Amino acid sequence: MVELSPVTWQAGLHWVDLLGILAFAMSGALLAVRKKFDLFGVVVLGCVTAVGGGAIRDAMTGQTPPLFLRDETYLWAALAGSLLGFGFGERLARFERTMRFFDTAGLALFAASGALGAIKIGLGPLGVIFAGTISGVGGGIVRDLIANEVPEVMYRREQLYATAAAAGAWVTLLLYSRVPLWQAQLGGALVV
Amino acid sequence: MVELSPVTWQAGLHWVDLLGILAFAMSGALLAVRKKFDLFGVVVLGCVTAVGGGAIRDAMTGQTPPLFLRDETYLWAALAGSLLGFGFGERLARFERTMRFFDTAGLALFAASGALGAIKIGLGPLGVIFAGTISGVGGGIVRDLIANEVPEVMYRREQLYATAAAAGAWVTLLLYSRVPLWQAQLGGALVV
Amino acid sequence: MVELSPVTWQAGLHWVDLLGILAFAMSGALLAVRKKFDLFGVVVLGCVTAVGGGAIRDAMTGQTPPLFLRDETYLWAALAGSLLGFGFGERLARFERTMRFFDTAGLALFAASGALGAIKIGLGPLGVIFAGTISGVGGGIVRDLIANEVPEVMYRREQLYATAAAAGAWVTLLLYSRVPLWQAQLGGALVV
Repeated sequence: MVELSPVTWQAGLHWVDLLGILAFAMSGALLAVRKKFDLFGVVVLGCVTAVGGGAIRDAMTGQTPPLFLRDETYLWAALAGSLLGFGFGERLARFERTMRFFDTAGLALFAASGALGAIKIGLGPLGVIFAGTISGVGGGIVRDLIANEVPEVMYRREQLYATAAAAGAWVTLLLYSRVPLWQAQLGGALVV
Repeated sequence: MVELSPVTWQAGLHWVDLLGILAFAMSGALLAVRKKFDLFGVVVLGCVTAVGGGAIRDAMTGQTPPLFLRDETYLWAALAGSLLGFGFGERLARFERTMRFFDTAGLALFAASGALGAIKIGLGPLGVIFAGTISGVGGGIVRDLIANEVPEVMYRREQLYATAAAAGAWVTLLLYSRVPLWQAQLGGALVV
Repeated sequence: MVELSPVTWQAGLHWVDLLGILAFAMSGALLAVRKKFDLFGVVVLGCVTAVGGGAIRDAMTGQTPPLFLRDETYLWAALAGSLLGFGFGERLARFERTMRFFDTAGLALFAASGALGAIKIGLGPLGVIFAGTISGVGGGIVRDLIANEVPEVMYRREQLYATAAAAGAWVTLLLYSRVPLWQAQLGGALVV
Protein backbone atom coordinates (compact mmCIF):
# COMPACT_ATOMS: atom_id res chain seq x y z
CA MET A 1 0.00 0.00 0.00
CA VAL A 2 1.50 3.27 -1.11
CA GLU A 3 1.54 6.08 1.44
CA LEU A 4 1.36 9.39 -0.41
CA SER A 5 3.33 12.28 1.02
CA PRO A 6 1.27 15.02 2.67
CA VAL A 7 2.27 17.43 -0.08
CA THR A 8 0.95 15.18 -2.84
CA TRP A 9 -2.26 14.58 -0.98
CA GLN A 10 -2.67 18.27 -0.30
CA ALA A 11 -2.34 19.01 -4.01
CA GLY A 12 -4.83 16.29 -4.95
CA LEU A 13 -7.33 17.46 -2.35
CA HIS A 14 -6.94 20.97 -3.71
CA TRP A 15 -7.93 20.00 -7.24
CA VAL A 16 -10.97 17.97 -6.28
CA ASP A 17 -12.02 20.80 -3.98
CA LEU A 18 -11.78 23.25 -6.86
CA LEU A 19 -13.98 21.01 -9.00
CA GLY A 20 -16.56 20.72 -6.25
CA ILE A 21 -16.52 24.50 -5.75
CA LEU A 22 -16.99 25.07 -9.49
CA ALA A 23 -19.98 22.70 -9.51
CA PHE A 24 -21.58 24.27 -6.43
CA ALA A 25 -21.04 27.77 -7.81
CA MET A 26 -22.80 26.79 -11.01
CA SER A 27 -25.73 25.32 -9.11
CA GLY A 28 -26.05 28.50 -7.03
CA ALA A 29 -25.75 30.73 -10.09
CA LEU A 30 -28.37 28.71 -11.98
CA LEU A 31 -30.86 29.03 -9.14
CA ALA A 32 -30.13 32.76 -9.01
CA VAL A 33 -30.72 33.08 -12.78
CA ARG A 34 -34.02 31.24 -12.43
CA LYS A 35 -34.97 33.64 -9.61
CA LYS A 36 -34.19 36.63 -11.86
CA PHE A 37 -31.39 37.98 -9.65
CA ASP A 38 -29.10 40.51 -11.28
CA LEU A 39 -25.45 39.81 -12.14
CA PHE A 40 -24.35 40.83 -8.65
CA GLY A 41 -26.93 38.54 -7.06
CA VAL A 42 -25.90 35.66 -9.29
CA VAL A 43 -22.24 36.05 -8.38
CA VAL A 44 -22.95 36.42 -4.65
CA LEU A 45 -25.28 33.42 -4.55
CA GLY A 46 -22.88 31.36 -6.64
CA CYS A 47 -19.89 32.24 -4.48
CA VAL A 48 -21.69 31.82 -1.17
CA THR A 49 -23.02 28.42 -2.26
CA ALA A 50 -19.57 27.41 -3.39
CA VAL A 51 -17.67 28.39 -0.27
CA GLY A 52 -20.50 27.84 2.25
CA GLY A 53 -19.75 24.19 2.96
CA GLY A 54 -16.05 24.84 3.42
CA ALA A 55 -16.72 27.89 5.59
CA ILE A 56 -18.92 25.81 7.90
CA ARG A 57 -16.28 23.08 8.00
CA ASP A 58 -13.56 25.57 8.92
CA ALA A 59 -15.77 27.26 11.52
CA MET A 60 -16.47 23.89 13.17
CA THR A 61 -12.86 22.79 13.15
CA GLY A 62 -11.60 26.16 14.33
CA GLN A 63 -9.62 27.18 11.25
CA THR A 64 -9.55 30.95 10.85
CA PRO A 65 -9.46 32.59 8.45
CA PRO A 66 -11.37 29.98 6.44
CA LEU A 67 -9.45 28.14 3.75
CA PHE A 68 -11.30 29.80 0.87
CA LEU A 69 -9.97 33.19 1.98
CA ARG A 70 -6.42 32.05 2.59
CA ASP A 71 -6.13 30.41 -0.84
CA GLU A 72 -7.32 32.67 -3.64
CA THR A 73 -7.81 29.84 -6.14
CA TYR A 74 -11.00 28.80 -4.37
CA LEU A 75 -12.60 32.18 -4.93
CA TRP A 76 -11.46 32.24 -8.55
CA ALA A 77 -13.13 28.85 -9.06
CA ALA A 78 -16.29 30.13 -7.35
CA LEU A 79 -16.27 33.26 -9.51
CA ALA A 80 -15.69 31.22 -12.66
CA GLY A 81 -18.55 28.86 -11.82
CA SER A 82 -20.87 31.78 -11.08
CA LEU A 83 -20.06 33.52 -14.37
CA LEU A 84 -20.48 30.25 -16.28
CA GLY A 85 -23.88 29.85 -14.65
CA PHE A 86 -24.78 33.44 -15.52
CA GLY A 87 -23.56 33.25 -19.10
CA PHE A 88 -24.90 29.84 -20.08
CA GLY A 89 -27.92 29.90 -17.74
CA GLU A 90 -30.61 28.52 -20.01
CA ARG A 91 -28.36 26.12 -21.82
CA LEU A 92 -26.79 24.68 -18.68
CA ALA A 93 -30.26 23.98 -17.32
CA ARG A 94 -30.79 21.50 -20.15
CA PHE A 95 -27.89 19.42 -18.94
CA GLU A 96 -29.59 18.85 -15.64
CA ARG A 97 -28.28 15.33 -15.25
CA THR A 98 -24.71 16.45 -15.80
CA MET A 99 -25.21 19.29 -13.36
CA ARG A 100 -26.65 16.97 -10.79
CA PHE A 101 -23.66 14.69 -11.15
CA PHE A 102 -21.25 17.53 -10.43
CA ASP A 103 -23.43 18.73 -7.59
CA THR A 104 -23.46 15.30 -6.00
CA ALA A 105 -19.74 14.92 -6.54
CA GLY A 106 -19.13 18.29 -4.89
CA LEU A 107 -21.35 17.28 -2.00
CA ALA A 108 -19.50 14.02 -1.52
CA LEU A 109 -16.11 15.68 -1.72
CA PHE A 110 -17.06 18.34 0.80
CA ALA A 111 -18.56 15.74 3.11
CA ALA A 112 -15.35 13.73 2.95
CA SER A 113 -13.12 16.78 3.53
CA GLY A 114 -15.32 17.89 6.43
CA ALA A 115 -15.05 14.43 7.93
CA LEU A 116 -11.29 14.42 7.49
CA GLY A 117 -11.02 17.83 9.13
CA ALA A 118 -13.04 16.55 12.07
CA ILE A 119 -10.87 13.44 12.34
CA LYS A 120 -7.75 15.59 12.35
CA ILE A 121 -8.88 17.57 15.38
CA GLY A 122 -9.71 14.34 17.19
CA LEU A 123 -13.51 14.30 17.21
CA GLY A 124 -15.48 11.14 17.99
CA PRO A 125 -17.45 9.17 15.37
CA LEU A 126 -20.70 11.10 15.67
CA GLY A 127 -18.87 14.42 15.51
CA VAL A 128 -17.07 13.30 12.36
CA ILE A 129 -20.33 12.26 10.70
CA PHE A 130 -22.05 15.48 11.72
CA ALA A 131 -19.19 17.71 10.56
CA GLY A 132 -18.97 15.79 7.28
CA THR A 133 -22.71 15.91 6.66
CA ILE A 134 -23.06 19.60 7.40
CA SER A 135 -20.00 20.46 5.33
CA GLY A 136 -21.52 18.51 2.45
CA VAL A 137 -25.05 19.88 2.55
CA GLY A 138 -24.23 23.28 4.11
CA GLY A 139 -23.51 25.12 0.87
CA GLY A 140 -26.77 23.92 -0.69
CA ILE A 141 -28.78 24.81 2.40
CA VAL A 142 -27.35 28.33 2.48
CA ARG A 143 -28.09 28.64 -1.26
CA ASP A 144 -31.73 27.64 -0.83
CA LEU A 145 -32.16 29.84 2.26
CA ILE A 146 -30.97 32.96 0.44
CA ALA A 147 -33.21 32.12 -2.53
CA ASN A 148 -36.06 31.79 0.01
CA GLU A 149 -36.83 28.13 -0.72
CA VAL A 150 -37.10 25.14 1.58
CA PRO A 151 -33.67 23.47 1.29
CA GLU A 152 -33.86 20.95 -1.53
CA VAL A 153 -31.91 18.45 0.52
CA MET A 154 -34.78 18.12 2.98
CA TYR A 155 -37.31 16.86 0.44
CA ARG A 156 -38.46 13.33 0.13
CA ARG A 157 -37.29 12.69 -3.42
CA GLU A 158 -33.81 13.80 -2.57
CA GLN A 159 -33.36 11.07 -0.03
CA LEU A 160 -30.62 9.25 -1.90
CA TYR A 161 -28.79 12.46 -2.71
CA ALA A 162 -28.89 13.58 0.88
CA THR A 163 -28.07 10.41 2.70
CA ALA A 164 -25.06 10.19 0.42
CA ALA A 165 -23.47 12.94 2.47
CA ALA A 166 -23.82 11.01 5.70
CA ALA A 167 -22.67 7.85 3.97
CA GLY A 168 -19.65 9.60 2.52
CA ALA A 169 -18.60 10.88 5.91
CA TRP A 170 -19.24 7.51 7.42
CA VAL A 171 -17.21 5.57 4.88
CA THR A 172 -14.41 8.10 5.17
CA LEU A 173 -14.33 7.45 8.87
CA LEU A 174 -14.28 3.68 8.45
CA LEU A 175 -11.56 3.77 5.85
CA TYR A 176 -9.45 6.28 7.68
CA SER A 177 -7.64 3.96 10.01
CA ARG A 178 -6.78 1.50 7.30
CA VAL A 179 -5.89 3.34 4.10
CA PRO A 180 -3.96 6.45 3.07
CA LEU A 181 -5.91 9.70 3.15
CA TRP A 182 -6.52 10.13 -0.56
CA GLN A 183 -8.07 6.67 -0.81
CA ALA A 184 -10.39 7.48 2.05
CA GLN A 185 -11.38 10.70 0.34
CA LEU A 186 -11.99 8.84 -2.90
CA GLY A 187 -13.88 6.06 -1.12
CA GLY A 188 -16.08 8.57 0.63
CA ALA A 189 -16.87 10.21 -2.66
CA LEU A 190 -17.46 7.00 -4.62
CA VAL A 191 -20.16 5.72 -2.29
CA VAL A 192 -22.37 8.34 -3.85
CA MET B 1 -23.50 29.63 51.14
CA VAL B 2 -22.05 26.52 49.59
CA GLU B 3 -19.56 27.01 46.79
CA LEU B 4 -19.72 24.02 44.46
CA SER B 5 -16.48 22.83 42.93
CA PRO B 6 -16.04 23.56 39.22
CA VAL B 7 -16.23 19.84 38.47
CA THR B 8 -19.63 19.43 40.14
CA TRP B 9 -20.96 22.52 38.42
CA GLN B 10 -19.63 21.34 35.10
CA ALA B 11 -21.43 18.02 35.50
CA GLY B 12 -24.69 19.69 36.48
CA LEU B 13 -24.51 22.11 33.58
CA HIS B 14 -23.85 19.18 31.30
CA TRP B 15 -27.05 17.37 32.28
CA VAL B 16 -29.33 20.38 31.97
CA ASP B 17 -27.71 21.16 28.62
CA LEU B 18 -28.46 17.62 27.44
CA LEU B 19 -32.12 18.01 28.43
CA GLY B 20 -32.40 21.32 26.62
CA ILE B 21 -30.77 19.79 23.54
CA LEU B 22 -33.19 16.85 23.63
CA ALA B 23 -36.15 19.23 23.81
CA PHE B 24 -34.89 21.46 21.00
CA ALA B 25 -34.12 18.43 18.80
CA MET B 26 -37.69 17.20 19.28
CA SER B 27 -39.11 20.59 18.38
CA GLY B 28 -36.98 20.72 15.23
CA ALA B 29 -37.87 17.14 14.27
CA LEU B 30 -41.60 17.77 14.81
CA LEU B 31 -41.54 20.81 12.53
CA ALA B 32 -39.66 18.74 9.95
CA VAL B 33 -42.26 15.95 10.17
CA ARG B 34 -45.04 18.49 9.69
CA LYS B 35 -43.17 19.84 6.65
CA LYS B 36 -42.94 16.30 5.20
CA PHE B 37 -39.16 16.17 5.23
CA ASP B 38 -37.63 12.71 4.86
CA LEU B 39 -35.79 10.92 7.67
CA PHE B 40 -32.54 12.64 6.73
CA GLY B 41 -34.20 16.04 6.73
CA VAL B 42 -35.80 15.36 10.10
CA VAL B 43 -32.49 14.36 11.67
CA VAL B 44 -30.61 17.31 10.16
CA LEU B 45 -33.24 19.85 11.20
CA GLY B 46 -33.50 18.29 14.66
CA CYS B 47 -29.74 18.28 15.19
CA VAL B 48 -29.16 21.76 13.79
CA THR B 49 -31.94 23.17 15.97
CA ALA B 50 -30.50 21.39 18.98
CA VAL B 51 -26.92 22.52 18.58
CA GLY B 52 -27.61 25.86 16.88
CA GLY B 53 -27.89 27.92 20.04
CA GLY B 54 -24.73 26.43 21.51
CA ALA B 55 -22.85 26.84 18.25
CA ILE B 56 -23.74 30.54 18.15
CA ARG B 57 -22.72 30.90 21.80
CA ASP B 58 -19.35 29.25 21.16
CA ALA B 59 -18.77 31.29 18.01
CA MET B 60 -19.44 34.51 19.92
CA THR B 61 -17.22 33.58 22.83
CA GLY B 62 -14.46 32.27 20.62
CA GLN B 63 -14.57 28.60 21.61
CA THR B 64 -13.50 26.39 18.74
CA PRO B 65 -14.30 23.69 17.99
CA PRO B 66 -17.80 24.25 19.44
CA LEU B 67 -18.67 22.34 22.57
CA PHE B 68 -21.18 20.05 20.83
CA LEU B 69 -18.40 18.68 18.65
CA ARG B 70 -15.87 18.25 21.43
CA ASP B 71 -18.31 16.32 23.63
CA GLU B 72 -20.10 13.55 21.77
CA THR B 73 -22.93 13.24 24.29
CA TYR B 74 -24.49 16.44 22.92
CA LEU B 75 -24.81 15.00 19.45
CA TRP B 76 -26.19 11.73 20.84
CA ALA B 77 -28.86 13.70 22.69
CA ALA B 78 -29.64 15.66 19.53
CA LEU B 79 -29.85 12.45 17.52
CA ALA B 80 -32.07 10.81 20.14
CA GLY B 81 -34.41 13.80 20.23
CA SER B 82 -34.61 13.86 16.44
CA LEU B 83 -35.43 10.16 16.22
CA LEU B 84 -38.02 10.50 18.99
CA GLY B 85 -39.61 13.32 17.03
CA PHE B 86 -39.54 11.26 13.84
CA GLY B 87 -40.92 8.10 15.46
CA PHE B 88 -43.63 9.60 17.61
CA GLY B 89 -44.33 12.60 15.37
CA GLU B 90 -48.13 12.66 15.41
CA ARG B 91 -48.45 11.54 18.99
CA LEU B 92 -45.89 14.03 20.35
CA ALA B 93 -47.79 16.83 18.64
CA ARG B 94 -50.75 16.12 20.92
CA PHE B 95 -48.66 16.89 23.98
CA GLU B 96 -48.06 20.39 22.74
CA ARG B 97 -48.11 21.89 26.20
CA THR B 98 -45.49 19.46 27.45
CA MET B 99 -43.39 20.12 24.40
CA ARG B 100 -43.67 23.85 24.87
CA PHE B 101 -42.54 23.46 28.46
CA PHE B 102 -39.38 21.62 27.39
CA ASP B 103 -38.82 24.10 24.60
CA THR B 104 -39.05 27.04 26.97
CA ALA B 105 -36.84 25.26 29.49
CA GLY B 106 -34.26 24.61 26.77
CA LEU B 107 -34.43 28.24 25.72
CA ALA B 108 -33.92 29.48 29.26
CA LEU B 109 -31.04 27.08 29.88
CA PHE B 110 -29.28 28.09 26.69
CA ALA B 111 -29.85 31.76 27.41
CA ALA B 112 -28.31 31.31 30.86
CA SER B 113 -25.33 29.32 29.55
CA GLY B 114 -24.77 31.88 26.79
CA ALA B 115 -24.86 34.66 29.38
CA LEU B 116 -22.40 32.78 31.59
CA GLY B 117 -20.06 32.23 28.67
CA ALA B 118 -20.17 35.95 27.92
CA ILE B 119 -19.50 36.81 31.58
CA LYS B 120 -16.51 34.47 31.62
CA ILE B 121 -14.81 36.27 28.74
CA GLY B 122 -15.44 39.58 30.47
CA LEU B 123 -18.15 41.20 28.35
CA GLY B 124 -20.18 44.17 29.57
CA PRO B 125 -23.85 43.97 30.60
CA LEU B 126 -25.35 44.57 27.15
CA GLY B 127 -22.99 42.03 25.58
CA VAL B 128 -24.01 39.46 28.19
CA ILE B 129 -27.71 40.04 27.53
CA PHE B 130 -27.22 39.93 23.77
CA ALA B 131 -25.12 36.74 23.86
CA GLY B 132 -27.62 35.11 26.24
CA THR B 133 -30.63 36.10 24.17
CA ILE B 134 -29.16 34.98 20.86
CA SER B 135 -27.93 31.69 22.36
CA GLY B 136 -31.44 31.08 23.67
CA VAL B 137 -33.44 31.92 20.57
CA GLY B 138 -30.71 31.09 18.00
CA GLY B 139 -31.55 27.41 17.63
CA GLY B 140 -35.23 28.15 17.08
CA ILE B 141 -34.50 30.90 14.57
CA VAL B 142 -32.21 28.61 12.56
CA ARG B 143 -34.91 25.90 12.70
CA ASP B 144 -37.59 28.22 11.34
CA LEU B 145 -35.27 29.67 8.70
CA ILE B 146 -34.45 26.24 7.28
CA ALA B 147 -38.14 25.29 7.33
CA ASN B 148 -38.74 28.57 5.43
CA GLU B 149 -41.01 30.14 8.03
CA VAL B 150 -40.82 33.50 9.76
CA PRO B 151 -39.13 32.72 13.10
CA GLU B 152 -41.86 31.90 15.61
CA VAL B 153 -40.08 33.91 18.26
CA MET B 154 -40.72 37.15 16.35
CA TYR B 155 -44.52 36.90 16.48
CA ARG B 156 -46.70 38.92 18.71
CA ARG B 157 -48.19 36.07 20.73
CA GLU B 158 -44.76 34.74 21.53
CA GLN B 159 -43.82 37.85 23.42
CA LEU B 160 -43.71 36.16 26.80
CA TYR B 161 -41.83 33.20 25.45
CA ALA B 162 -39.29 35.41 23.79
CA THR B 163 -38.67 38.01 26.43
CA ALA B 164 -38.03 35.10 28.77
CA ALA B 165 -34.70 34.62 27.03
CA ALA B 166 -33.59 38.17 27.69
CA ALA B 167 -34.93 37.96 31.21
CA GLY B 168 -33.04 34.73 31.82
CA ALA B 169 -29.81 36.32 30.66
CA TRP B 170 -30.51 39.41 32.71
CA VAL B 171 -31.21 37.54 35.92
CA THR B 172 -28.14 35.42 35.37
CA LEU B 173 -26.10 38.57 35.15
CA LEU B 174 -27.64 40.04 38.30
CA LEU B 175 -27.20 36.86 40.29
CA TYR B 176 -23.72 36.20 39.04
CA SER B 177 -21.85 38.49 41.36
CA ARG B 178 -23.63 37.22 44.45
CA VAL B 179 -24.28 33.48 44.18
CA PRO B 180 -22.41 30.39 42.98
CA LEU B 181 -22.72 29.59 39.32
CA TRP B 182 -25.23 26.77 39.50
CA GLN B 183 -27.66 28.92 41.45
CA ALA B 184 -27.38 31.65 38.86
CA GLN B 185 -28.07 29.15 36.10
CA LEU B 186 -31.07 27.81 37.99
CA GLY B 187 -32.31 31.31 38.76
CA GLY B 188 -31.97 32.34 35.14
CA ALA B 189 -34.01 29.34 34.06
CA LEU B 190 -36.70 29.64 36.74
CA VAL B 191 -37.65 33.19 35.81
CA VAL B 192 -39.29 31.69 32.77
CA MET C 1 0.64 63.54 3.11
CA VAL C 2 -0.41 63.37 6.73
CA GLU C 3 -0.18 59.97 8.38
CA LEU C 4 -2.76 59.76 11.16
CA SER C 5 -1.76 57.89 14.29
CA PRO C 6 -3.45 54.48 14.75
CA VAL C 7 -5.30 55.85 17.76
CA THR C 8 -6.87 58.71 15.81
CA TRP C 9 -7.85 56.43 12.97
CA GLN C 10 -9.27 53.90 15.38
CA ALA C 11 -11.45 56.60 16.94
CA GLY C 12 -12.63 57.85 13.55
CA LEU C 13 -13.43 54.35 12.36
CA HIS C 14 -15.35 53.83 15.56
CA TRP C 15 -17.66 56.78 14.96
CA VAL C 16 -18.46 55.97 11.36
CA ASP C 17 -19.06 52.36 12.38
CA LEU C 18 -21.52 53.53 15.02
CA LEU C 19 -23.39 55.59 12.43
CA GLY C 20 -23.56 52.67 10.03
CA ILE C 21 -24.80 50.41 12.84
CA LEU C 22 -27.49 52.92 13.78
CA ALA C 23 -28.68 53.10 10.18
CA PHE C 24 -28.72 49.32 9.74
CA ALA C 25 -30.54 48.85 13.03
CA MET C 26 -33.24 51.28 11.90
CA SER C 27 -33.64 49.48 8.57
CA GLY C 28 -33.99 46.12 10.37
CA ALA C 29 -36.42 47.56 12.90
CA LEU C 30 -38.55 49.17 10.18
CA LEU C 31 -38.84 45.89 8.29
CA ALA C 32 -39.78 44.17 11.56
CA VAL C 33 -42.45 46.80 12.26
CA ARG C 34 -43.86 46.30 8.77
CA LYS C 35 -43.92 42.54 9.40
CA LYS C 36 -45.88 43.10 12.64
CA PHE C 37 -43.19 41.62 14.91
CA ASP C 38 -43.52 42.45 18.60
CA LEU C 39 -41.10 44.75 20.45
CA PHE C 40 -38.76 41.84 21.15
CA GLY C 41 -38.77 40.83 17.49
CA VAL C 42 -38.10 44.41 16.39
CA VAL C 43 -35.12 44.74 18.73
CA VAL C 44 -33.68 41.35 17.79
CA LEU C 45 -34.06 41.96 14.05
CA GLY C 46 -32.68 45.49 14.40
CA CYS C 47 -29.66 44.36 16.42
CA VAL C 48 -28.90 41.32 14.28
CA THR C 49 -29.08 43.42 11.12
CA ALA C 50 -26.83 46.01 12.70
CA VAL C 51 -24.12 43.68 13.92
CA GLY C 52 -24.52 40.99 11.23
CA GLY C 53 -22.06 42.47 8.76
CA GLY C 54 -19.42 43.06 11.42
CA ALA C 55 -19.93 39.58 12.87
CA ILE C 56 -19.35 38.02 9.45
CA ARG C 57 -16.27 40.23 8.94
CA ASP C 58 -14.82 39.17 12.30
CA ALA C 59 -15.63 35.49 11.69
CA MET C 60 -13.83 35.62 8.35
CA THR C 61 -10.79 37.41 9.69
CA GLY C 62 -10.61 35.23 12.79
CA GLN C 63 -11.35 37.87 15.43
CA THR C 64 -13.09 36.34 18.43
CA PRO C 65 -15.05 37.46 20.25
CA PRO C 66 -16.48 39.72 17.55
CA LEU C 67 -15.86 43.43 17.88
CA PHE C 68 -19.50 44.25 18.65
CA LEU C 69 -19.31 42.13 21.80
CA ARG C 70 -15.95 43.44 22.95
CA ASP C 71 -17.02 47.08 22.64
CA GLU C 72 -20.39 47.80 24.24
CA THR C 73 -20.98 51.03 22.33
CA TYR C 74 -21.82 49.03 19.20
CA LEU C 75 -24.68 47.24 20.92
CA TRP C 76 -25.95 50.48 22.42
CA ALA C 77 -26.04 52.01 18.93
CA ALA C 78 -27.85 48.93 17.61
CA LEU C 79 -30.35 49.10 20.48
CA ALA C 80 -30.90 52.82 19.97
CA GLY C 81 -31.48 52.35 16.24
CA SER C 82 -33.92 49.51 16.89
CA LEU C 83 -35.92 51.54 19.42
CA LEU C 84 -35.96 54.55 17.08
CA GLY C 85 -37.31 52.28 14.35
CA PHE C 86 -39.92 50.86 16.73
CA GLY C 87 -41.00 54.23 18.11
CA PHE C 88 -41.13 56.25 14.88
CA GLY C 89 -41.96 53.32 12.58
CA GLU C 90 -44.62 54.90 10.38
CA ARG C 91 -43.05 58.32 10.33
CA LEU C 92 -39.54 57.05 9.50
CA ALA C 93 -40.98 55.15 6.55
CA ARG C 94 -41.92 58.49 4.97
CA PHE C 95 -38.29 59.54 4.90
CA GLU C 96 -37.42 56.59 2.74
CA ARG C 97 -34.84 58.50 0.75
CA THR C 98 -33.02 59.61 3.89
CA MET C 99 -33.16 56.07 5.23
CA ARG C 100 -31.78 54.68 2.01
CA PHE C 101 -28.92 57.15 2.18
CA PHE C 102 -27.95 55.96 5.65
CA ASP C 103 -28.41 52.37 4.61
CA THR C 104 -26.12 52.79 1.63
CA ALA C 105 -23.61 54.69 3.74
CA GLY C 106 -23.63 51.89 6.33
CA LEU C 107 -23.17 49.33 3.59
CA ALA C 108 -20.22 51.20 2.11
CA LEU C 109 -18.60 51.71 5.50
CA PHE C 110 -18.95 48.05 6.41
CA ALA C 111 -17.66 46.99 3.01
CA ALA C 112 -14.61 49.19 3.48
CA SER C 113 -13.96 47.98 7.04
CA GLY C 114 -14.35 44.37 5.91
CA ALA C 115 -11.89 44.98 3.12
CA LEU C 116 -9.45 46.62 5.51
CA GLY C 117 -9.73 43.69 7.91
CA ALA C 118 -8.98 41.31 5.05
CA ILE C 119 -5.99 43.39 3.95
CA LYS C 120 -4.64 43.38 7.50
CA ILE C 121 -4.54 39.58 7.66
CA GLY C 122 -2.80 39.50 4.29
CA LEU C 123 -5.48 38.19 1.93
CA GLY C 124 -5.16 38.48 -1.84
CA PRO C 125 -7.24 40.88 -3.99
CA LEU C 126 -10.20 38.54 -4.56
CA GLY C 127 -10.34 37.65 -0.86
CA VAL C 128 -10.36 41.35 0.04
CA ILE C 129 -13.21 42.07 -2.36
CA PHE C 130 -15.19 39.04 -1.20
CA ALA C 131 -14.72 39.84 2.51
CA GLY C 132 -15.62 43.48 1.88
CA THR C 133 -18.69 42.65 -0.16
CA ILE C 134 -20.05 40.08 2.27
CA SER C 135 -19.38 42.36 5.26
CA GLY C 136 -21.30 45.12 3.47
CA VAL C 137 -24.32 43.15 2.33
CA GLY C 138 -24.25 40.48 5.09
CA GLY C 139 -26.33 42.38 7.61
CA GLY C 140 -29.04 43.11 5.07
CA ILE C 141 -29.10 39.51 3.84
CA VAL C 142 -29.47 38.18 7.39
CA ARG C 143 -32.24 40.76 7.98
CA ASP C 144 -34.20 39.66 4.91
CA LEU C 145 -33.65 35.96 5.65
CA ILE C 146 -35.10 36.25 9.16
CA ALA C 147 -38.04 38.26 7.80
CA ASN C 148 -38.49 35.43 5.27
CA GLU C 149 -37.98 37.55 2.17
CA VAL C 150 -35.65 37.13 -0.77
CA PRO C 151 -32.68 39.37 0.09
CA GLU C 152 -33.36 42.81 -1.34
CA VAL C 153 -29.80 43.10 -2.51
CA MET C 154 -30.32 40.29 -5.04
CA TYR C 155 -33.03 42.07 -7.02
CA ARG C 156 -32.55 43.68 -10.36
CA ARG C 157 -33.41 47.26 -9.37
CA GLU C 158 -30.92 47.17 -6.54
CA GLN C 159 -28.02 46.65 -8.89
CA LEU C 160 -26.44 50.03 -8.22
CA TYR C 161 -26.92 49.72 -4.50
CA ALA C 162 -25.35 46.30 -4.47
CA THR C 163 -22.43 46.75 -6.78
CA ALA C 164 -21.52 49.75 -4.64
CA ALA C 165 -20.35 47.30 -1.99
CA ALA C 166 -17.98 45.56 -4.34
CA ALA C 167 -16.83 48.88 -5.70
CA GLY C 168 -16.21 50.22 -2.21
CA ALA C 169 -14.09 47.23 -1.32
CA TRP C 170 -12.28 47.50 -4.63
CA VAL C 171 -11.46 51.18 -4.26
CA THR C 172 -10.33 50.60 -0.71
CA LEU C 173 -7.92 48.01 -1.98
CA LEU C 174 -6.59 50.28 -4.70
CA LEU C 175 -6.15 53.22 -2.37
CA TYR C 176 -4.64 51.19 0.40
CA SER C 177 -1.09 51.08 -0.80
CA ARG C 178 -0.94 54.78 -1.52
CA VAL C 179 -2.86 56.71 1.11
CA PRO C 180 -3.36 56.63 4.88
CA LEU C 181 -6.07 54.32 6.11
CA TRP C 182 -8.75 56.86 6.87
CA GLN C 183 -8.56 58.27 3.35
CA ALA C 184 -8.97 54.79 1.93
CA GLN C 185 -11.99 54.22 4.15
CA LEU C 186 -13.45 57.55 3.06
CA GLY C 187 -12.67 56.87 -0.58
CA GLY C 188 -14.28 53.44 -0.41
CA ALA C 189 -17.41 54.99 1.06
CA LEU C 190 -17.60 57.94 -1.30
CA VAL C 191 -17.68 55.83 -4.44
CA VAL C 192 -21.21 54.97 -3.47
